Amino acid sequence: MSTSPAVTTSQKVCLIVGAGDATGSAIAKRFAQAGFTVCVTRRTPDASAALVRSIQDAGGRAIAYQLDARREEEVIALLKKIEADVGALEVVVFNVGGNVRFPLLEMTAEKYFKTWEMCAMAGFLTGREAVRAMLPRKHGTILFTGATASLRGGIGFSAFAGGKAALRALAQSMAREFGPQGLHIAHVVVDGVIDSERVRTTQPERVAALGPQGLLDPESIARAYLWLHEQTPDAWTFELDLRPSVEKW
Amino acid sequence: MSTSPAVTTSQKVCLIVGAGDATGSAIAKRFAQAGFTVCVTRRTPDASAALVRSIQDAGGRAIAYQLDARREEEVIALLKKIEADVGALEVVVFNVGGNVRFPLLEMTAEKYFKTWEMCAMAGFLTGREAVRAMLPRKHGTILFTGATASLRGGIGFSAFAGGKAALRALAQSMAREFGPQGLHIAHVVVDGVIDSERVRTTQPERVAALGPQGLLDPESIARAYLWLHEQTPDAWTFELDLRPSVEKW
Amino acid sequence: MSTSPAVTTSQKVCLIVGAGDATGSAIAKRFAQAGFTVCVTRRTPDASAALVRSIQDAGGRAIAYQLDARREEEVIALLKKIEADVGALEVVVFNVGGNVRFPLLEMTAEKYFKTWEMCAMAGFLTGREAVRAMLPRKHGTILFTGATASLRGGIGFSAFAGGKAALRALAQSMAREFGPQGLHIAHVVVDGVIDSERVRTTQPERVAALGPQGLLDPESIARAYLWLHEQTPDAWTFELDLRPSVEKW
Amino acid sequence: MSTSPAVTTSQKVCLIVGAGDATGSAIAKRFAQAGFTVCVTRRTPDASAALVRSIQDAGGRAIAYQLDARREEEVIALLKKIEADVGALEVVVFNVGGNVRFPLLEMTAEKYFKTWEMCAMAGFLTGREAVRAMLPRKHGTILFTGATASLRGGIGFSAFAGGKAALRALAQSMAREFGPQGLHIAHVVVDGVIDSERVRTTQPERVAALGPQGLLDPESIARAYLWLHEQTPDAWTFELDLRPSVEKW
Repeated sequence: MSTSPAVTTSQKVCLIVGAGDATGSAIAKRFAQAGFTVCVTRRTPDASAALVRSIQDAGGRAIAYQLDARREEEVIALLKKIEADVGALEVVVFNVGGNVRFPLLEMTAEKYFKTWEMCAMAGFLTGREAVRAMLPRKHGTILFTGATASLRGGIGFSAFAGGKAALRALAQSMAREFGPQGLHIAHVVVDGVIDSERVRTTQPERVAALGPQGLLDPESIARAYLWLHEQTPDAWTFELDLRPSVEKW
Repeated sequence: MSTSPAVTTSQKVCLIVGAGDATGSAIAKRFAQAGFTVCVTRRTPDASAALVRSIQDAGGRAIAYQLDARREEEVIALLKKIEADVGALEVVVFNVGGNVRFPLLEMTAEKYFKTWEMCAMAGFLTGREAVRAMLPRKHGTILFTGATASLRGGIGFSAFAGGKAALRALAQSMAREFGPQGLHIAHVVVDGVIDSERVRTTQPERVAALGPQGLLDPESIARAYLWLHEQTPDAWTFELDLRPSVEKW
Repeated sequence: MSTSPAVTTSQKVCLIVGAGDATGSAIAKRFAQAGFTVCVTRRTPDASAALVRSIQDAGGRAIAYQLDARREEEVIALLKKIEADVGALEVVVFNVGGNVRFPLLEMTAEKYFKTWEMCAMAGFLTGREAVRAMLPRKHGTILFTGATASLRGGIGFSAFAGGKAALRALAQSMAREFGPQGLHIAHVVVDGVIDSERVRTTQPERVAALGPQGLLDPESIARAYLWLHEQTPDAWTFELDLRPSVEKW
Repeated sequence: MSTSPAVTTSQKVCLIVGAGDATGSAIAKRFAQAGFTVCVTRRTPDASAALVRSIQDAGGRAIAYQLDARREEEVIALLKKIEADVGALEVVVFNVGGNVRFPLLEMTAEKYFKTWEMCAMAGFLTGREAVRAMLPRKHGTILFTGATASLRGGIGFSAFAGGKAALRALAQSMAREFGPQGLHIAHVVVDGVIDSERVRTTQPERVAALGPQGLLDPESIARAYLWLHEQTPDAWTFELDLRPSVEKW
């Protein structure tokens, strides 16, 4: 479901699965500025229209796709389509969220499943298809967005920490299998609250309590992703954390 | 689906979800010897008949149930039934396995899902219903079986390490939420090959290479589970590892 | 500097380096009850007199030694002397403390050094000489007391976390080198405040805030040490944590 | 002991403690290129002459100092002198090595001590004095070089893993104390063999076995250090790893 004119296949291509309003959009813009044709996906159609327009207005190339990254056929089909229509994927970013917090006794099997499906199943499908595309070329970068909960459980985090821990285990497994074959797999632990219109609107007190320096700027996260991609293979990073200076940890 | 005569509710009760031939059976026998009425579950009916007979022959009390621990209604119903028919659950052990190993490109969405369902969804349902039963009494022990893969990913372990990491995150989340309310939640990292007829039959070369001291005896694992239960609340262990002396790690 | 009558060398022997009033004494008593001849050390002479008397009054065997475990010659000499005079060391426990907490800018080189010397240098000397004694017999247990700070730094913990992290790295290095040769090396992470006369006297408000269940009983810690020693080599634990049920972590 | 002409104090200043031939020199050159006046230290006088010349020939500013970073007075004096003579320290890098590997029974107290003194004591003194200089300005970056051994012990690594684990605990303690006050503290885990004339000369077989992509290029490491410094305080990294793509981990 392309919303932009066809581009030539000579361009380097970056796919961002889960290009939400904050981090995902910032990553898309940053890679577009760096000369990538940026393919962005969200679950709902047209949700990416403003992002695509903004990138195009700045002279970049962006294409929006509708994708439910939890569906195997959809993920397989999309990556094939991008490789055929747009060009060889050089970077794939998995940035699907899904943070939920419930006391254990209020967590249902359905919510537990859906959280994992968003965090881990979608990450697995995206990662596997990215490898399938990149491995013949022995070249490419696959980046996963993690969180504090990727590293440890906590009260209320039975589902989210489980999904994120599974995603991290996937990323580690992939890095060990495919690093020696030329694919750079990395995992970014975002530890803190990311600045967004939504968090400012829905949690104004929390934002106020964190102070003016308490939120992560999505553009700073995006810079880290681009930097990871630009590393040379003699010195790849598998994992780094990002955290506001004032964050308690 | 009880396969033994009714017991009085004055007994202390231990439930082992996933009472397979090796570790689960050894845990059942050990708790039976310690005076527990032992409720054991497997997915297939009658698979526990020999175990129940063996415990009863030794003068213990055991009841077998059929359970697919991935099904929310089944888990809810079983724990209610045991509380009603047998007595108050003092110990619940989650010991469902599911180790699989595949190169990433051979891992299907179905296998990835099923591995997680066995490791994590079943653990979540078991853990949640155990808490629901125990919390009003502010007393009880919930034990989860982990593995090396609980701590890190590795080549071929995208699914299993994901499932086990999610289970560990669940156990941590539960320990932090319910420890202060009197429930002892612990996670055992079994790092090595467990001795069983199956492993000796299907992987004789691997067993030979490990040497006479290279396998974990299920009875040793069972002793650790009983010991964890017997800890006093001033000094609970959340996590311990178990590993043959000759194991490389 | 023995303070008790000579014992025959047919007894199994346990050495506790740093047998302070709380944990170390409890470990000594527990191993004495289990039939060990217990050798206990402290830096100041006669500090162990009451402990030795208490063990002897209960029918056990205990011998006190003065030891500055930071001094290579002293440690070498003591372990040789015990092996010669008392018997083959089966268990060696390193339990020297040294918790200090200072803002970084108030930490001096001397305090930083002394903290490390107590935590790590003394642990290295004790561990190395224990290995030297036990290795020819391919049998023995060496236990190290760790703390929360063994696992991570924190505000004020530049020195203590450094010393404890170094001790843990030592224990891991030893376990990997000597486990396959029959020596069981383990590390216990004590996470919380240990009950003692001193903590009740010097920090009454902290003790009150923790509540009646907020302190670790030294006897519970001691049980864990004995249990670690009693593990069979098919299923050894390298590390376990101990923490009051109500502790936040 | 300046070996270059006086510079004005309007320049931004970077100090590299332990500016050895490989990593330290590369970091110095990179920061010099980025416009820093680079102060480099080694234990032996004149060891830095070639480095200083190379930076100056490229149009940069470099000053060499002799420093034994294990000596409290020397570290205090040097940082005071640089602040007075050269300018406000904006970046301090601690890059002192000290990798040793010995079977435990061949490790002496002296070697154990010296390894820690190089890794941890020198890091503590450098870190503390860097904080003392930077804190009044609430601005500055302090970077510590870690290694695989920072994260775990291993056979032969009782001393080196201890020293590096202590350094990491220091860095964590400092980051938690001073991050909220505006100082960026980070720790880089270098996991692999760094390319250098020395390693190629002394371990040619190891280098050959690792293959053409098996060594970390010091310049890649240096780029990571500069990037860490350039992060904005809303999204600081505390820790990242660097590893050749072909490295097993």
